[in-house]
Amino acid sequence: MGILGDIIELHQGGKIETMLKHPIQNKEDLAKVYTPGVAQVCQEIARNQSKAYELTTKKNTVAVISDGTAVLGLGDIGPHAAMPVMEGKAALFKQFANVDAVPVCLDTKDTEEIIAIVKALAPTFGGINLEDIASPRCFEIEARLRAELDIPVFHDDQHGTAIVVLAGLLNAFKVCGKDITTAKIVVNGLGAAGLSVAKMLLKAGATNLIGVDRFGAIHRNEHYDNPHWNSFATISNPFEEEGSLSDVIQDADAFVGVSAGNILSIEDVQRMADDRIIFAMANPIPEIDPILAAPFVRVMATGRSDFPNQINNVLCFPGIFRGALDCGAIDINEEMKLAAAQAISSVIDPADLNEHYIIPDVFDQRVVELIRQAVMEAAYRTGVARHVLTPEIH
Amino acid sequence: MGILGDIIELHQGGKIETMLKHPIQNKEDLAKVYTPGVAQVCQEIARNQSKAYELTTKKNTVAVISDGTAVLGLGDIGPHAAMPVMEGKAALFKQFANVDAVPVCLDTKDTEEIIAIVKALAPTFGGINLEDIASPRCFEIEARLRAELDIPVFHDDQHGTAIVVLAGLLNAFKVCGKDITTAKIVVNGLGAAGLSVAKMLLKAGATNLIGVDRFGAIHRNEHYDNPHWNSFATISNPFEEEGSLSDVIQDADAFVGVSAGNILSIEDVQRMADDRIIFAMANPIPEIDPILAAPFVRVMATGRSDFPNQINNVLCFPGIFRGALDCGAIDINEEMKLAAAQAISSVIDPADLNEHYIIPDVFDQRVVELIRQAVMEAAYRTGVARHVLTPEIH
Repeated sequence: MGILGDIIELHQGGKIETMLKHPIQNKEDLAKVYTPGVAQVCQEIARNQSKAYELTTKKNTVAVISDGTAVLGLGDIGPHAAMPVMEGKAALFKQFANVDAVPVCLDTKDTEEIIAIVKALAPTFGGINLEDIASPRCFEIEARLRAELDIPVFHDDQHGTAIVVLAGLLNAFKVCGKDITTAKIVVNGLGAAGLSVAKMLLKAGATNLIGVDRFGAIHRNEHYDNPHWNSFATISNPFEEEGSLSDVIQDADAFVGVSAGNILSIEDVQRMADDRIIFAMANPIPEIDPILAAPFVRVMATGRSDFPNQINNVLCFPGIFRGALDCGAIDINEEMKLAAAQAISSVIDPADLNEHYIIPDVFDQRVVELIRQAVMEAAYRTGVARHVLTPEIH
Repeated sequence: MGILGDIIELHQGGKIETMLKHPIQNKEDLAKVYTPGVAQVCQEIARNQSKAYELTTKKNTVAVISDGTAVLGLGDIGPHAAMPVMEGKAALFKQFANVDAVPVCLDTKDTEEIIAIVKALAPTFGGINLEDIASPRCFEIEARLRAELDIPVFHDDQHGTAIVVLAGLLNAFKVCGKDITTAKIVVNGLGAAGLSVAKMLLKAGATNLIGVDRFGAIHRNEHYDNPHWNSFATISNPFEEEGSLSDVIQDADAFVGVSAGNILSIEDVQRMADDRIIFAMANPIPEIDPILAAPFVRVMATGRSDFPNQINNVLCFPGIFRGALDCGAIDINEEMKLAAAQAISSVIDPADLNEHYIIPDVFDQRVVELIRQAVMEAAYRTGVARHVLTPEIH
């Protein structure tokens, strides 16, 4: 029936289901799982709310929440059409990290209503993964929920991408003998993902970083309608470079594209410093054709699985939530994100690093456990862990 | 470790989990379940929203929603402490009828906010089971959601109870050679469940039905603070009987208690007509001790599993949602509820009916399929079915 028929067939009835941990086969089972036995468990939690982390699915369950307004590259396709992505994400959470995840697609685009709904849903979940929510409301929603909830809230489109880019870039710099603290880095495309990538790189030590959007390089001598760009201008572009992408790419060590297909030319690439690094992550068409660019770059990464060095969020979200849930984190903070990126980098032995192998394969089974350990360590160190250390993945 | 230890142990980490229908083991699987393949499924639904019933979990998934304000007999114990009940319910949905159910405990008691939240959640689900929400807000929430959503909304505490009581009572009348249309029936306790039971019995043909609460029999010569009682007075108590439970129980054929322990005396029972029927469903202590009452009643039912004739909602909700989901019902209407009650009654062959066997065992495997067929038939007949007939339980 062909690949499309296969895919449609696979989606019949959805991709996930609920299963019982203990079958209910007789009246004794029923009296334990449900009434009257369950009343004692309810009372235990009523007396001590933190027991919900022991005695309910909250401990291991993440809500994958979307309003369906920025789904993949498809845009605002609505909550019903967003479901297959959220289900897919839930399936990945379970397959890669044994996290139970529940798709929740909301029939509202109102920022305040989305915040109120997620806050009301919070008792049920151990964490919130925001997904495919349009910019700029995704910033406000995530910031408010992080501040107002005592469970971790993580917008994967922003931070998952940023973490995996940083992981890859750290290894790319190693391959090229460069240093993030001195390299000139151009980030092209300053939507939600691009801004998050840029800020993550700054947090990891980048100093000479320039953000570019369709009006050119963002710099502090300009006022922008987008308030996020104004504040970003104050922390980036230290030499106040102005002009187009083709201007500011001059002598850059790394280009990171989170923008659109074919916006980087071979001439632009040739203007960069030697041992160039290109992360062209627009999907499905990268910022520059990897085959055309190959003769001119040292390290090339894309979002595609049919080229080496795929930058894929699947490398991050299962492990980061596994770690956050296992220590009962009240937040996924910047230190935990940085730790996750370093953990992903560290999966590849320095001796094995090369131009075509800067980021682990998504099926590399070491990834989740290394992220989990690093994230938990960072959570304990920064005081956001609720539980005592638990030794292994359940 | 004893029964309590057993129950607590069983609840560690919760009672349900998410499972993948198709494992993700390689890049090809990933490309079908997630990006880029999933985009085609999203687009299919974006073009035709009804495809969400085919290509997502909506088709088979019910949200079990509570605000934690009326949990079992425990009252307002909050959303965290309500979780074990909602998880238990989700487990029962799956075990008995292969319905995937998701517990959703809300951190709000505001009627309008609960309505807005459930409406926003609706794209994700094929049905909404409201649970353990305090009266009177449960009425407004259910009525508004039924009117404003195109998926079935069912408050199990009201209607599940009513359906199973009617099922049992129909068979009890058969055993006693009585007829619901002429029998005198007293319903004691006019909270959410009691009112729903009384209305269901009226819908099934009862004419001489009297509702009693702590101020005595409800009748149309009185004005009540509770607006539900005023409207109930207009459809019940045709002979305008006034007075206490002990007064109006005179010559009653059936007593249905949805009230509190030990409020019915042996003297009250003796005042009833011959071949008396007592449904004493207060839990854990019935309205009258079944052992003390035994010599004076013909048919006795309780909510307890350690006596014959247990009136248990588990007999209803799995099958009624199985039927509603399988025909894509946009509502669970009164005809479907009546059909469910008759289906439950019909499980027991008339030849097998007796004083101690008026209601099937909760583990009787015929129950779900018979309810499902009856509910689907009623849905098609009343024009609330979205799908064409599907032949069997998946």
